[in-house]
Amino acid sequence: MKRNSEKFDRNLIKSFFGSFMRAFIQVVKTNLRSFRTMSTEATASVSKAAASATNSEKPVLNAEKKQVKSDHARKGKKKPHHFNLKVPKGTKDWADQDMVIREAIFKKLTAIFREHGGVTIDTPVFELREILEGKYGEDSKLIYNLEDQGGELTSLRYDLTVPFARYVAMNGIEKMKRYHIAKVYRRDQPAMTKGRMREFYQCDFDVAGEYDSMVPDAEMLKIMVDGLTQLGINKFKIKLNNRKILDGIFKVCGVKDKDVRRVSSAVDKLDKLPWADVKKEMCEEKNQPEEVADLIGQYVKLSGPIRDLLAKLKADDKLMSNESANEGISEIEAMADYLEAFKIDNYISFDMSLARGLDYYTGVIYECVTEQSAPPKDAAEKKAKAKHHKSKGDEDASEYVGVGSIAAGGRYDNLVGMFLGTNSKGKKAKSIPCVGVSFGVERIFSLIKQRSELVKKVRPVSTQVFVMAFGGGKDWNGLLPERMAIAAKLWDAGIETEYMYKKKVNPRKQFDAAEKVGCPLAVILGKQEFADGKIRVKELGTGQTDEGDLVPIDDVVKEVRKHLDSLNDDGVDEVSRL
Amino acid sequence: MKRNSEKFDRNLIKSFFGSFMRAFIQVVKTNLRSFRTMSTEATASVSKAAASATNSEKPVLNAEKKQVKSDHARKGKKKPHHFNLKVPKGTKDWADQDMVIREAIFKKLTAIFREHGGVTIDTPVFELREILEGKYGEDSKLIYNLEDQGGELTSLRYDLTVPFARYVAMNGIEKMKRYHIAKVYRRDQPAMTKGRMREFYQCDFDVAGEYDSMVPDAEMLKIMVDGLTQLGINKFKIKLNNRKILDGIFKVCGVKDKDVRRVSSAVDKLDKLPWADVKKEMCEEKNQPEEVADLIGQYVKLSGPIRDLLAKLKADDKLMSNESANEGISEIEAMADYLEAFKIDNYISFDMSLARGLDYYTGVIYECVTEQSAPPKDAAEKKAKAKHHKSKGDEDASEYVGVGSIAAGGRYDNLVGMFLGTNSKGKKAKSIPCVGVSFGVERIFSLIKQRSELVKKVRPVSTQVFVMAFGGGKDWNGLLPERMAIAAKLWDAGIETEYMYKKKVNPRKQFDAAEKVGCPLAVILGKQEFADGKIRVKELGTGQTDEGDLVPIDDVVKEVRKHLDSLNDDGVDEVSRL
Repeated sequence: MKRNSEKFDRNLIKSFFGSFMRAFIQVVKTNLRSFRTMSTEATASVSKAAASATNSEKPVLNAEKKQVKSDHARKGKKKPHHFNLKVPKGTKDWADQDMVIREAIFKKLTAIFREHGGVTIDTPVFELREILEGKYGEDSKLIYNLEDQGGELTSLRYDLTVPFARYVAMNGIEKMKRYHIAKVYRRDQPAMTKGRMREFYQCDFDVAGEYDSMVPDAEMLKIMVDGLTQLGINKFKIKLNNRKILDGIFKVCGVKDKDVRRVSSAVDKLDKLPWADVKKEMCEEKNQPEEVADLIGQYVKLSGPIRDLLAKLKADDKLMSNESANEGISEIEAMADYLEAFKIDNYISFDMSLARGLDYYTGVIYECVTEQSAPPKDAAEKKAKAKHHKSKGDEDASEYVGVGSIAAGGRYDNLVGMFLGTNSKGKKAKSIPCVGVSFGVERIFSLIKQRSELVKKVRPVSTQVFVMAFGGGKDWNGLLPERMAIAAKLWDAGIETEYMYKKKVNPRKQFDAAEKVGCPLAVILGKQEFADGKIRVKELGTGQTDEGDLVPIDDVVKEVRKHLDSLNDDGVDEVSRL
Repeated sequence: MKRNSEKFDRNLIKSFFGSFMRAFIQVVKTNLRSFRTMSTEATASVSKAAASATNSEKPVLNAEKKQVKSDHARKGKKKPHHFNLKVPKGTKDWADQDMVIREAIFKKLTAIFREHGGVTIDTPVFELREILEGKYGEDSKLIYNLEDQGGELTSLRYDLTVPFARYVAMNGIEKMKRYHIAKVYRRDQPAMTKGRMREFYQCDFDVAGEYDSMVPDAEMLKIMVDGLTQLGINKFKIKLNNRKILDGIFKVCGVKDKDVRRVSSAVDKLDKLPWADVKKEMCEEKNQPEEVADLIGQYVKLSGPIRDLLAKLKADDKLMSNESANEGISEIEAMADYLEAFKIDNYISFDMSLARGLDYYTGVIYECVTEQSAPPKDAAEKKAKAKHHKSKGDEDASEYVGVGSIAAGGRYDNLVGMFLGTNSKGKKAKSIPCVGVSFGVERIFSLIKQRSELVKKVRPVSTQVFVMAFGGGKDWNGLLPERMAIAAKLWDAGIETEYMYKKKVNPRKQFDAAEKVGCPLAVILGKQEFADGKIRVKELGTGQTDEGDLVPIDDVVKEVRKHLDSLNDDGVDEVSRL
């Protein structure tokens, strides 16, 4: 049965992604316009559901609270303690279908990571504070600190990359392919229905070690493409750039060394803001002369198929004379060969506007976007309206932000080195170069969740058998210990089994309970039949009006298996059709 | 191949637990004395390994650090920043075989939870602080708080039970069977090699809702027994008691109402301390008259098979005249019927000394212990020695504590009610009664890990195929893009595949890399053969001296599948033998 149940899970997941994928392609192909309308509607309805789920203090409780407050105020009594019945801002409880979908995403990504030779590690959710310091640039202010309760100063991890680099350095590792699926924490403005939360999962695959240039880097993009397509997301674009080229561009345009990272973080906003705003930030906040900004503007608007843009950049003598840019362009050229070998070059947009926010990237960077990544056209207007209507604590940016990138990564060759000491001669130890990719599960989830007709089919309970007792009369005791003994037999055979936690209960209620969890099979202990050593095995569901098979009690496991196998056989056909 | 790979996983896990179980039984049966010696030795060697893994600042780095410090001190320069390259106290990184074993434990427990109709939820790792306050009695001081960074005050969860109660209350749930596998946090004295950590996993199954007395409670014990036996742990005892009986005993012995919880928490220490010490605590710290303590002492030493002790207690007229005790005894009597129906009564020791520390229990309580649960006989001596030798920050209690209970739980009928408000008439809303069981994964892991010959067999990497290129001469380019294209074909078919990240590499190094990850199959691109449209598929491992099969390139997936199926077929036989 173990095998059957796993088969069942697999069927569920396969048919889930299979049907999602087919339906998705269909919709996208037939009418892009209607697709847009549909997604907006779906988002709206999901928004509503999620808002009620996350803004979790229920109206009725609110009402009760007020009532009690005034009662006590009147009587001059000490107020009893009332709980703020909610989860912390930017977090949510996961349950039911959502959990099944999210776990299916984890399972799929884990399978892909393992296909590429990955092993997994698990690091503590908090790290010594000094480990995280100086790694995230302007975003460091978003780190959650733990209170100083006497002992070490610690903070919640902000990503899985820095803990990985710490792990590599700490254990003297020279080569490693590791994946890590775990929660990370950022004190950011949440946009819950867009999958932007303060507590969220990252699914990371990283390769540490000295290898031939761009070989593992290209594989990161293969993993990105496979991860998304196998999750039914086919309409996406991977923006690719190289920090070495960007640095060269800034240099060639006249940006001073000390300003490079600051100018780069302005460029990073081009996916959310128009060039005019970014230029303004460069000139006004980051003190760049207008002609420097204009020159940068000429470069960062360049994007296109990898070979086309490579040809254009290689014809730019000024840029090619910059050592950093030249090296970066050679790397992208090597990468183009490998992306073609993997047949994934068609997903790539070589894009000079991609800068990525994090400090630690040193080479190629990439980011995967879909139609829903960008904020809505009227974002500014919606944002102003939202700010006006909501109190500060309740703010959620879902209305005026996009889903953002759904997967991203890049090369960080110096991060491990930051953790390695200097050797006995005072010389810095050699770093271990790394490259990685990270999937944003909640964002991917928010795209999948929009297919509500698909979500409805997901069954969160696995129960296969409901053990019931039918009888009546003065001496009827409900056969509870007998139901328990039968359930125990089925559990011991690995079969998911439930029964009602009541001594005596009528048949209707038992059928209802079985139906509620979508259970396909009943084992029925009839008063007289059971006394005669027999038990009834009956398939449930609409159209099943028979009385089931009357079989010897001792055969219950065998008979249940037979029925479940025949029910699951249909499932297997379902899978092979995909 | 997806199916094969899952089959492979399953084989691994089944044969893992199967062989563990058989070996364990064997050892226990043949010689209990030698078992004790062996476990102590194993613990010692694991201690050593874990100590070096957790006490993670490596000697070499320490030495370097000192060197650099003095260098800089001499030159009067500002010290460069040096990282304290370790994880926070009481936490550890998990990797390699340990991860595989831990995930196998999760998988097994999840399957059992689902067999019993459980659905899973996921709650945030931190909760509003007021949610956790007043739930844990004397242990509340062990809660980790997050820093007040402007916003809500939050704390890391201390267990999964309080968040579950919060979830039930917040969502107006009346009935639910839920399981939750997640990390919890306690600022306690760690004992790393005994699986007592500050960050650790709990695997919880809880049933919320109004049901017939003791019906779900008995099922919790069935889950406990099945969880442990299916993880290969057979030598354990479940202590069972009822807070209602304990409260009755205290009352009958003359303890005042206000002192009941405090006296109870003294009794709770009987698994670690002799009665004389507990009595001293009662009299001196908790101000009980000596005759009261002596009376309590008569009761708490009672334990034994459930029916035997029930008979003894029922003959005690004074105790039976106490309403709370009487009710508690009736409950245990009902439970005895159900435990016999489940055929697990032989695991139970009805034990008046079991009190459990947490405030929220209201009825039956239970705790599972093994031989390694208790501290060593010379604990006090070892503790004094350890305190003397170590600085405060490095303290680890592994030498002088036991593993403790490996699974535990009980009934908590009022916890959900603590989160529910009062209704409009100022009347407290009705609580949702709950009962649950929690497995201590790290403690279970520490028992399993002692079987080091078993651990060695676990393979953390899944790689099935290594793609290699053999060739040489002046025009030899290493066929890297070609290896990538073949790997991509295999990945697309769901087959775990690696190749070396180098343009040109000699055969020896490629075989070594494949061997290192335990890869069973090679796909070889020979210089001339590949030019002729052929590829070689070769089984690896000792005794495989053949050249493999030369097949058309286009058949690579089919041929690889054929080989893997035949390799995995042996695996299937392995499973069916269990």
